[in-house]
Amino acid sequence: MIIVPLGVASATPTATRHLSSVAVWREGSVFLFDCGENAQMRMLQGGLKRSQIDYIFISHFDTDHYSGLIGLLSTLQLQRRDREITLVGPEGLQEFIEFNFDFSNISLSYDIKYVELDEDFESERVVDADEYYVEARPLNHTKFCIGYRLQEKDRPGKVDAEKAQEQGISEDWQYKDLKDGKDVELEDGTVVKSADIVGHPRPGDSFAYITDTKYCPNSVKLAKNTNVLIHEATFNESLSDKAEETGHSTAKDAARVANEAKTKLLVITHFSARYTNEYVLLREARDDFFPTWVATELRPIFTDPAHEKGIIEPKVYLKEINQNKGDSNSGGGGSKSKRNKRGGKKKKRRMRKRKKTSSSRSRKSSSSSKSSSSRSSRSSRSKKSSSNNNNNNNNGGSKDNNERKPRQITPRTPFDDFDRF
Amino acid sequence: MIIVPLGVASATPTATRHLSSVAVWREGSVFLFDCGENAQMRMLQGGLKRSQIDYIFISHFDTDHYSGLIGLLSTLQLQRRDREITLVGPEGLQEFIEFNFDFSNISLSYDIKYVELDEDFESERVVDADEYYVEARPLNHTKFCIGYRLQEKDRPGKVDAEKAQEQGISEDWQYKDLKDGKDVELEDGTVVKSADIVGHPRPGDSFAYITDTKYCPNSVKLAKNTNVLIHEATFNESLSDKAEETGHSTAKDAARVANEAKTKLLVITHFSARYTNEYVLLREARDDFFPTWVATELRPIFTDPAHEKGIIEPKVYLKEINQNKGDSNSGGGGSKSKRNKRGGKKKKRRMRKRKKTSSSRSRKSSSSSKSSSSRSSRSSRSKKSSSNNNNNNNNGGSKDNNERKPRQITPRTPFDDFDRF
Repeated sequence: MIIVPLGVASATPTATRHLSSVAVWREGSVFLFDCGENAQMRMLQGGLKRSQIDYIFISHFDTDHYSGLIGLLSTLQLQRRDREITLVGPEGLQEFIEFNFDFSNISLSYDIKYVELDEDFESERVVDADEYYVEARPLNHTKFCIGYRLQEKDRPGKVDAEKAQEQGISEDWQYKDLKDGKDVELEDGTVVKSADIVGHPRPGDSFAYITDTKYCPNSVKLAKNTNVLIHEATFNESLSDKAEETGHSTAKDAARVANEAKTKLLVITHFSARYTNEYVLLREARDDFFPTWVATELRPIFTDPAHEKGIIEPKVYLKEINQNKGDSNSGGGGSKSKRNKRGGKKKKRRMRKRKKTSSSRSRKSSSSSKSSSSRSSRSSRSKKSSSNNNNNNNNGGSKDNNERKPRQITPRTPFDDFDRF
Repeated sequence: MIIVPLGVASATPTATRHLSSVAVWREGSVFLFDCGENAQMRMLQGGLKRSQIDYIFISHFDTDHYSGLIGLLSTLQLQRRDREITLVGPEGLQEFIEFNFDFSNISLSYDIKYVELDEDFESERVVDADEYYVEARPLNHTKFCIGYRLQEKDRPGKVDAEKAQEQGISEDWQYKDLKDGKDVELEDGTVVKSADIVGHPRPGDSFAYITDTKYCPNSVKLAKNTNVLIHEATFNESLSDKAEETGHSTAKDAARVANEAKTKLLVITHFSARYTNEYVLLREARDDFFPTWVATELRPIFTDPAHEKGIIEPKVYLKEINQNKGDSNSGGGGSKSKRNKRGGKKKKRRMRKRKKTSSSRSRKSSSSSKSSSSRSSRSSRSKKSSSNNNNNNNNGGSKDNNERKPRQITPRTPFDDFDRF
């Protein structure tokens, strides 16, 4: 997953901070958590395709958390979207949307699936797909407010391509069988054990979005063992009574939730406009929970670099380059289509890794003041990935020249077609 | 007046253009024409106080022209506004506002005065103050749409202070009588004629806002003899049939309106996202109407520099400096208050003129390709003003050090207190 904060202000925008919204990119589809004013423009500026949005989750009905919704949905309409979109939020969401579209006489070209939660629900799986699910729980704010957790289901272990080849595996179906845990028997009768080739199943990524709430047990439940927790930190401790009164958290509260939930990375957001410098809040949270980070608009956050594909990619990649060369000489049509398909996949991976380095870079800088075992290990890890990322990009460049067509620009919004991930 | 385009996009924002909105600053109060998404943030970034908004005029109910309204109004609520605000727009405006505030349980701390226009109105003075009025006329769009004209009433002529003093005028009441057109008789019996001292009455500034319409007679009526006309130019001539179909204007249409209305300056806006470079549209409009200019977000436009006060200021100003010096030695309380009052006025003037130079600069650059008598005269005029603007600023600087208190920063939003005009 790639998490991109689109707005980090609370209540009212400042000249530098937009209203609350967080986009999560996962395997080509976007999850939007809250949709503050101008979220659609921030997505463009962040290189995220609005057409890729599949779900929008609204925490509660304070203007600053949904004021961008109508604008975004009517833009999707102008883009002639036909895919369904799912809106999740408190009861009344549908009424709100329908009133506003009736008001400006818009009849949508796409379907909206509404998932409405009423005040007395306890916990619900609002989305349940093959690879992930989204869990919702009520929070403790001045009005009915919902927190969300996006959880990937566990993924099968990685196949060690090199080892497999050494043992004589070549066909795709053999790889598939091995991945499914079946042992494969070769012509010469030798049996290749799945366990030798395929690694342990990998636990899924996880991300929790908790905003506009005092400390409450549900926050902890949602954030339990997440890779990344985005939690509001509207005030600092000196204004704890104001936080109590307005139903918000202090940086300390956020750190407390992170501690009890044992999340790997806490990202604080939803800053009161009185803090021109968020690092006041960061410092306070860091005292109680070290791996804390300030949400910066349009700076992507990686749930867990170790889970990003492509650490072993360069080898696979070089192998394919050579193979492709062979094809182009013989000009085999079938293999060509296959190659393109792979190319598509690869492109995505490359993009991913490029981002990753940038994030790891910023992560290093953001916590350069202190030093801890956990941090140094992380940064070293990301250094590694970044290095084999570079030589991979070079190959990518040369490949592009041979193969990829020039990017098409949609006449409507040139930027809209520009998808960096 | 100072006109600040806040957003120049049409239909959907691009990564660089916000949705339609124009702020007009006049003598410390702000008129907002349309309120596209994020208009409130653009105001901050332009150094305009949201608390100074007195009127909001909505042209029509396409989402991109009012999607920022609820956000803005609830921010005013958070700022604990108590002054009334006037909303002008098509029928249904009140229903829309009230539904949305009920929906998020906001009970406003200030009154909203609604002026709603129904589809079959012909022309109406929607605002009528002592110094100005706003006229509205229906336009020709796919849905009911309104154009506006902000017209200052004529102002009395300027008093030639030097000449008056030569003739022995000293008291304020005498100045007042002269200004009111009455002749004044001095102790020695000599009569000072008002006509000798007071110049011709000065015609008021004027500004028209015409967007989302095909060419129509009402546009011309609204724009008649305006100093500045902001007119939409969504497409260029090659897409005129698309413009016809969607009820929009081409750059040529805008120029046609400007020509027939004999406006002094045409500013085109509301650009289709397909034009990454608006100068395509500018060139087209320029061919038919030379004094055309592209609306650039947050770049201020002056309705008519010649009407800006303070061309004679340096003299008055130096005189006052000396006078003040005298006061501070003798420390006369009465004269002090008087001085402060004047100081306030002057500050405003200084600000005005500083902006003016910037605008004239940009105007020069924007039309540097060609050259015409009208243009050269204007630029030379602004050069003059800019020059005596500088030495005036210097005096101003020195004066500030003695007198003005350090600026107060509101804790809520530091930028909110920062009013550049």
